[in-house]
Amino acid sequence: MSKIAIIAGAGPGTGAAIARRFAQVYPVILLSRSEHTLNPLVKDIKHNGGSAVGIPTDVASIPSMDSTLEQIKSNFGPDLTIAAAIFNVASKFSMKPFLEQSPEQFFGSIEPAVMGAFNFAQATLPFMLHGNKDRYSPTLIFTGATAALKGSSGLSAFAASKFGTRAMAQSLAREFGPKGVHVSHAIIDGIINTEMTKGFGQDIPDAKIEPQGIADTYWHLHTQPRSAFTHEIDIRPYSEKW
Amino acid sequence: MSKIAIIAGAGPGTGAAIARRFAQVYPVILLSRSEHTLNPLVKDIKHNGGSAVGIPTDVASIPSMDSTLEQIKSNFGPDLTIAAAIFNVASKFSMKPFLEQSPEQFFGSIEPAVMGAFNFAQATLPFMLHGNKDRYSPTLIFTGATAALKGSSGLSAFAASKFGTRAMAQSLAREFGPKGVHVSHAIIDGIINTEMTKGFGQDIPDAKIEPQGIADTYWHLHTQPRSAFTHEIDIRPYSEKW
Amino acid sequence: MSKIAIIAGAGPGTGAAIARRFAQVYPVILLSRSEHTLNPLVKDIKHNGGSAVGIPTDVASIPSMDSTLEQIKSNFGPDLTIAAAIFNVASKFSMKPFLEQSPEQFFGSIEPAVMGAFNFAQATLPFMLHGNKDRYSPTLIFTGATAALKGSSGLSAFAASKFGTRAMAQSLAREFGPKGVHVSHAIIDGIINTEMTKGFGQDIPDAKIEPQGIADTYWHLHTQPRSAFTHEIDIRPYSEKW
Amino acid sequence: MSKIAIIAGAGPGTGAAIARRFAQVYPVILLSRSEHTLNPLVKDIKHNGGSAVGIPTDVASIPSMDSTLEQIKSNFGPDLTIAAAIFNVASKFSMKPFLEQSPEQFFGSIEPAVMGAFNFAQATLPFMLHGNKDRYSPTLIFTGATAALKGSSGLSAFAASKFGTRAMAQSLAREFGPKGVHVSHAIIDGIINTEMTKGFGQDIPDAKIEPQGIADTYWHLHTQPRSAFTHEIDIRPYSEKW
Repeated sequence: MSKIAIIAGAGPGTGAAIARRFAQVYPVILLSRSEHTLNPLVKDIKHNGGSAVGIPTDVASIPSMDSTLEQIKSNFGPDLTIAAAIFNVASKFSMKPFLEQSPEQFFGSIEPAVMGAFNFAQATLPFMLHGNKDRYSPTLIFTGATAALKGSSGLSAFAASKFGTRAMAQSLAREFGPKGVHVSHAIIDGIINTEMTKGFGQDIPDAKIEPQGIADTYWHLHTQPRSAFTHEIDIRPYSEKW
Repeated sequence: MSKIAIIAGAGPGTGAAIARRFAQVYPVILLSRSEHTLNPLVKDIKHNGGSAVGIPTDVASIPSMDSTLEQIKSNFGPDLTIAAAIFNVASKFSMKPFLEQSPEQFFGSIEPAVMGAFNFAQATLPFMLHGNKDRYSPTLIFTGATAALKGSSGLSAFAASKFGTRAMAQSLAREFGPKGVHVSHAIIDGIINTEMTKGFGQDIPDAKIEPQGIADTYWHLHTQPRSAFTHEIDIRPYSEKW
Repeated sequence: MSKIAIIAGAGPGTGAAIARRFAQVYPVILLSRSEHTLNPLVKDIKHNGGSAVGIPTDVASIPSMDSTLEQIKSNFGPDLTIAAAIFNVASKFSMKPFLEQSPEQFFGSIEPAVMGAFNFAQATLPFMLHGNKDRYSPTLIFTGATAALKGSSGLSAFAASKFGTRAMAQSLAREFGPKGVHVSHAIIDGIINTEMTKGFGQDIPDAKIEPQGIADTYWHLHTQPRSAFTHEIDIRPYSEKW
Repeated sequence: MSKIAIIAGAGPGTGAAIARRFAQVYPVILLSRSEHTLNPLVKDIKHNGGSAVGIPTDVASIPSMDSTLEQIKSNFGPDLTIAAAIFNVASKFSMKPFLEQSPEQFFGSIEPAVMGAFNFAQATLPFMLHGNKDRYSPTLIFTGATAALKGSSGLSAFAASKFGTRAMAQSLAREFGPKGVHVSHAIIDGIINTEMTKGFGQDIPDAKIEPQGIADTYWHLHTQPRSAFTHEIDIRPYSEKW
């Protein structure tokens, strides 16, 4: 019976770091919209002795997610166990005066995040339930943000999607915890150190969150015994006053 | 220049009590999906010397909300001031195991609430901004619930919609507060005493929230001077342990 | 049977505004360390037709609080009802690097606040319980601050005292709510406009909280029916981004 | 230059598990009121190849804490580094109607907790600051409880002490984080599986928190790189609905 980890939002940066960390123990399935993103990561994990499959997927689309699941089942058998499922899909971040936002922009931010989280949880949880006797409890982690706790000016869409995902994480933890599934929500509070953020805040060393740090903490969450689950955790650089 | 109050979700119960309270001072516009709901309330307010117009509206629909606004402008003139806008639309509440929820059910709960709150705020705020020199600051209030703070088992859709509305209320408060608009979010924590809840919890007197109490507190929020705005408030019966 | 209101921390500013507001309905007992502070306020309230008694009291001292209660009972009879008790005593605010704080400074900040809140609640609650059939439920309000929610750098003593008072307010609400006593906690989030703060932030009009606004909201809390109590409320100027 | 870990509240149960975990890497100093508690733990750690010193200490007493520090300095040299300091001292838990609590009981609960946390932080932080270039950032962890977030009926003293400690943890994180010290607060939400709790809740397996789980998570916090510190974390059994 196969045990795998699945990472949605396996782009460069945090997603890639999480994928590499879990690939040290499990075959990993990597989801991202673009094959372009997935290929170098799959190659890199294989090069380091891991097992990885990239499947271009739009997690906010039910048909796309369904077809991805079919592919996973045909690869690993229908009785596979998902040991870890990480929802790391970014919400669209656009700061804009509220009255200048179009409904399309507003829902274009909320739908992928909340619809994506819903689809991902519905697709993966059925394969997590029977893993609850394993050494490490099956673990579903949602990557959140400061905006999951605080709605800032001009960020109503982003905040609504992050608040919404947090609500779902809480509901799932309370429903699936007693069934042995570990559901966590991580509040990433700071700029993550990636190619994209190269230009920001260079003055203070280590003031941007290293993706590796996030990945190691996600792994730790996965290893917690069921008598000592963490549901919510914040991660921020030492330099942050917050 | 006309000054009005507008209440979305002007059904029986809380919406009606709010409408009656604000009708003591302003002409009130009452929105609800069904004319059936609006008529007796409009009649009752007029009977008591107030001024009320009921406009059947689906606030989650942009065309419906647009047409409602056109009607308001033609009634009160295009330079009307909205002194108070109350978003009191109920989210669908259905407790159900997560894996038995269909995407339609899930989004059928989130869309009306979050889309409705978005449309309502976008439609009313432009008519609130120039009221910021009035005796009472223009006030936009969102009715929330316990589920805005806590995602319970089986309630992920309901909680996501309430968390999402709270996120929007916070963002709007931070953006429009400095422009003199008072944005508040009320956490109604308990069963409201209405026709629908007649059968529940009859043993302890006053253990259900009286709509009149909510209405009086909403009115108080409206009267707060801009140096002392309240953004978030909880309302619950004395008997609640919470 | 007499009904009175009692305000601890009846200094100039917020305490005085609260006293004047409640004196419109009840005889008020004003507590403050210095007679000097109390006299002009007592005079002013009487001048406006109210009834007021000032009793110099250190609420953090049990003997002082006991003697004050004896005086109140001899004035109003032993079966008096305390309709409203407001704990408005300031905590010492001193921002200082943690390693430079002496234990005396640290506890000199916590003790008056937390000990004072404890003494005040123990002294007043016994006279509130039998008032639970009155038109307005007996009400115990604690004035809190932003530091009740957030411990800032250099403010550990101030924050610990404000967090501690908030903890007590919650515990008392859960214990005495079901007995008909309304216990509230107000988070005052901003600079209050008093003699002392005259020099601060003069550029934006109304950017400092008017004591009158706080007083009116406290009065509103007192008038809430028991089916619709508010436990926690924030109060801040419109200009605050928070 | 010596590097050590110090654990206050090194009683059986959580304290002992933490001590054993950190003793795998550092010499550990164990503080507890009674030598009786310390001796078997010291012996056990040594037996497993670790290094441990037990020093009977009342952390709420400044002279006692001072004398303990002198002893540590004479053992490890005055330029020692405290790599990890864990404040795991229990607050007195007594559920009691508020009006039956004596001031002595109330402050007998708050003082040891808050005074103890203050003394411990003041004593250890000066030896943590120069460790900020080490592989693992110097780490100060406070063990909290559900009562740090919620004041329950009859538990005002316990809650005030836990809220107060949390306030201090936040203030210290904001002050010492930028100096490279990792300050964390753990919310232990459930019954811990110890000798004392043997009789409780036996029906559901693993429904009590294993001390080992707490210890492993504390160790993980210690290993987080400074770009990805966690300040607050909850730990609860999977079976908890919370």
